[in-house]
Amino acid sequence: MILNQDAIVRQLENLPHLDTDSAKRTIAREANLTKPAGSLGRLEELSSWCAACQGRYPPRLENMEILVFAGNHGVTEQGVSAFPPTVTRQMVANFADGGAAINQLAEIQGAKLSVIDLELDRPTANFTVASAMSTEELASAFGTGYDALNEEADVLVVGEMGIGNTTSAAALSCALFGGRPADWTGPGTGLDAAGVAVKTRAVAAAMKFHGKNLDNPLEALKRVGGREMAAMAGVVLSARCSGIPVILDGFVATAAVAVLERTVCGALDHCVPGHLSSEPGHRLLLNKLGKEPLLDLGMGLGEASGGAVALGLLRCAVAAHNGMATFEEAAVSRGN
Amino acid sequence: MILNQDAIVRQLENLPHLDTDSAKRTIAREANLTKPAGSLGRLEELSSWCAACQGRYPPRLENMEILVFAGNHGVTEQGVSAFPPTVTRQMVANFADGGAAINQLAEIQGAKLSVIDLELDRPTANFTVASAMSTEELASAFGTGYDALNEEADVLVVGEMGIGNTTSAAALSCALFGGRPADWTGPGTGLDAAGVAVKTRAVAAAMKFHGKNLDNPLEALKRVGGREMAAMAGVVLSARCSGIPVILDGFVATAAVAVLERTVCGALDHCVPGHLSSEPGHRLLLNKLGKEPLLDLGMGLGEASGGAVALGLLRCAVAAHNGMATFEEAAVSRGN
Repeated sequence: MILNQDAIVRQLENLPHLDTDSAKRTIAREANLTKPAGSLGRLEELSSWCAACQGRYPPRLENMEILVFAGNHGVTEQGVSAFPPTVTRQMVANFADGGAAINQLAEIQGAKLSVIDLELDRPTANFTVASAMSTEELASAFGTGYDALNEEADVLVVGEMGIGNTTSAAALSCALFGGRPADWTGPGTGLDAAGVAVKTRAVAAAMKFHGKNLDNPLEALKRVGGREMAAMAGVVLSARCSGIPVILDGFVATAAVAVLERTVCGALDHCVPGHLSSEPGHRLLLNKLGKEPLLDLGMGLGEASGGAVALGLLRCAVAAHNGMATFEEAAVSRGN
Repeated sequence: MILNQDAIVRQLENLPHLDTDSAKRTIAREANLTKPAGSLGRLEELSSWCAACQGRYPPRLENMEILVFAGNHGVTEQGVSAFPPTVTRQMVANFADGGAAINQLAEIQGAKLSVIDLELDRPTANFTVASAMSTEELASAFGTGYDALNEEADVLVVGEMGIGNTTSAAALSCALFGGRPADWTGPGTGLDAAGVAVKTRAVAAAMKFHGKNLDNPLEALKRVGGREMAAMAGVVLSARCSGIPVILDGFVATAAVAVLERTVCGALDHCVPGHLSSEPGHRLLLNKLGKEPLLDLGMGLGEASGGAVALGLLRCAVAAHNGMATFEEAAVSRGN
């Protein structure tokens, strides 16, 4: 599908609401399960949120999908990554061969992993001196993501691979939420302080070059984002329309989909951040979005890895909710 | 086995060291796996710790065991719980029937769950006016835990069930680490402020009644602990001697095994706290032990539930370590 900016905005302005009835039924059952009220903490919130997203009671987690989108970035010309841009394609091959972290994590969770590479031979333009994508390229990448959704999925984990894309995520975050470029840049795959300074200058240059054009979130995505980022925004919008809860991976995935929230408030109500990335901008970005990560393990790999680990928590939550006995069923006395 | 206090101390003074060679081999391989150095964060630490505990390279997680120990507490006479003491036995029946949270969580992780109840018909004595256990009772309960270990296990998750036992854990923590009783007490299964005040007075009464006798950690376990707590200390000592890493559940499990660390420094090097409990004393206790929890989800159920959720993280860590390709194998270029 080709999804141009007007069509995306129309969809965002007509999003389905989460199903509060299913959430209420989940919460009502939680109160009767054989445990002190609230003692499963955030797992209880995850159960009711999952049901609300799915519009179904009880919540279900049979088909679990992990999607990793890969793209190449012209901004690597600025020397913003510790790894050469050829690594994007090499890692896509590694995903196909089952050798990456995400392959092992998907298997542990019993989730299906798919990798979608977006024109790796055509990096985006260097956004310090040009628009990263044309209007048509944005519409194509966004639509590729939108179409990548398996509508039968019960949950989706979204992540990415793209050398240079933490610079893109920093620029996009700065465009969406303001602040200084240095608030959003960090070591990425392993830059030293001098490398981070180069990255910060690249983001500052982009802010200056694109100026007021960045005030529109989708325009900002086009100008300083990447194809894999547009695709992540696309699939997350698609998931909302299909009643599929989403676990976001780290900084780049969160920045990409923040475009939706900045366009229409509440657009990410069906998304939970799987973890807090070691990339320092992620904490600030989650604060801006008002979202709390499930895990804080110092991970900063990308490729949906943190989201895949967090999927285990959602599985625990739904299994506990659906499988536990009530006080009545188990003949357990209630508390005061 | 009957393990008296002298025998326990002798074992503690002759603990096997963790295997630094296996840890080093794990760390060396991590550096060659297809990811930026350190980008799996705490998962990388877990892999090397697991190998060091097991004394084996590569680390292995085939047989995963969850042990829940149950005991009854005479201190419930003081009105320290929101649930009646009959619930301990009712919940043990619920575990047997598969209706509790831990049943669902064990199944998600593919772990074997065993529940060991310790003389539920014979609650410990009310420790505000007597020693909770006799010397023989402590030795018996500790030995029951010691013997409960499956030596073929690759990892052990330890938890408990026992109405009244957060009061016992608070008293034991206060005995082991000092501070005011109120530093260690909290709502447990759902006490209101007045209930917590009753609990705090019970802990204060115990500190006064037992006085200097609490200076010896094992004596403190006998005087203010519980049978399930002695058993947890026993199985954790046993696991150390058998090269089995342990994931601790919450406040009560941590307090119980803190007795070992206070007897011999380093006795808990093979243990990781699975999560930070919602019970406020847990944070303080972990600080005293110098240990960082893996999860912080506001859980406070006990019955090994937080540890079982955390087991998923260890599974992810070991799967990633053992299954990933190296840069050479995958022909992926290295970073700077």
